[in-house]
Amino acid sequence: MRVTDRTRLRRLPAEGSYRTEDLHAVLDAGFVCHLGLVIDGWPMVVPTTYGRAGDYLFLHGSVASRSLRAAATPTPVCVTVTHVDGVVLARSLFNHSINYRCAMVYGLPTVLSDPEEKLAGLRAISDQVVAGQWGYARAPSTKELAATTVLRLGLAESSVKVSAGPPDDAGDPDGELDVWAGEIPLRTVRLDPLADPALRAGIELPAHLAGGDPVPGSMRPGDLA
Amino acid sequence: MRVTDRTRLRRLPAEGSYRTEDLHAVLDAGFVCHLGLVIDGWPMVVPTTYGRAGDYLFLHGSVASRSLRAAATPTPVCVTVTHVDGVVLARSLFNHSINYRCAMVYGLPTVLSDPEEKLAGLRAISDQVVAGQWGYARAPSTKELAATTVLRLGLAESSVKVSAGPPDDAGDPDGELDVWAGEIPLRTVRLDPLADPALRAGIELPAHLAGGDPVPGSMRPGDLA
Repeated sequence: MRVTDRTRLRRLPAEGSYRTEDLHAVLDAGFVCHLGLVIDGWPMVVPTTYGRAGDYLFLHGSVASRSLRAAATPTPVCVTVTHVDGVVLARSLFNHSINYRCAMVYGLPTVLSDPEEKLAGLRAISDQVVAGQWGYARAPSTKELAATTVLRLGLAESSVKVSAGPPDDAGDPDGELDVWAGEIPLRTVRLDPLADPALRAGIELPAHLAGGDPVPGSMRPGDLA
Repeated sequence: MRVTDRTRLRRLPAEGSYRTEDLHAVLDAGFVCHLGLVIDGWPMVVPTTYGRAGDYLFLHGSVASRSLRAAATPTPVCVTVTHVDGVVLARSLFNHSINYRCAMVYGLPTVLSDPEEKLAGLRAISDQVVAGQWGYARAPSTKELAATTVLRLGLAESSVKVSAGPPDDAGDPDGELDVWAGEIPLRTVRLDPLADPALRAGIELPAHLAGGDPVPGSMRPGDLA
């Protein structure tokens, strides 16, 4: 990663990182990003799924989508992935904060046109959102593939910020206050798969959904400490 | 809410809404948004906490923060709040989707300068992130208040999208495939508050953190069905 004027961490730089392994860890722990782009001078921020493979992020959408069409110009984008890990309660309201992991990726996405490249990008997204569905559910048809825009975004201009741990005001004069301080941890939990009420009888839940860890960043209720 | 060229829902409009109560419901079910703005022609998307009070969103940050300084010009912003409720597994990869609730708010934020207005904005944020902390933790000092930028954003130009339920391809030819279809529901869970290891002895967890529903959008592990 190179540090640019856009990715230089100005606030609390001790929490920041430009290490590739930290970036990959934050990106791989989720599957929904917020895609930012500029349309007619206005920012637009839309949630969308993504997949990481190597040093690239892949995004997709309908060829009719406004954000994807704009991003296909090509237009500068900022892709932000955020995991909220807890609320930090300090002795003072001023020192309240959030524990989080956040990655920001800037760049000019490439619109993929080669069908094999598009399929590889879609597979990266599918594998990230629910591992095991690619090769199990019906593959995209030629027509479906043509109706899908797939964007590839390099990770060269990225930054990561991580905030964790308790509040840091115990040593301040505020540490003498009779105020409880600590953290409320937050976790994403995946419940048991719910079958489509219209599912035909006799179709069993496949093994990749019954066990393992199909959705990144999520735990099963039984995993909660 | 008025419908503008920016907020007109183009894709799957059946899922969209411009009703104020739907907008409030989505905004009130969370406390972290993604703030989008344009800096030197590039989009920038940063996660930050927010609070809603009446027909306004309030955001805050350090007066030194790059995004807040830019937003204070005033600059056009897009604030997006997204709740991911589940992963929808269809018979075809093409019909896979996410169940979510998303609100987007466009506007030119006002930078508050009156200390009473700033305090009211900060209270809206505090009340939203963890109800009960305002009036319990130490209030902002004059100096802290001066070091904090508080933005107010009207909700007039907003839109909401909600996607819920099972995949809708059971009636397609794909419905005949031997492929399981349904949803993996996702929930945000709050664990028991973790005391700061440096907390002075004898300080009890206050009632507003021990019971009730302090963090919007989160459930206790025991609430999981």
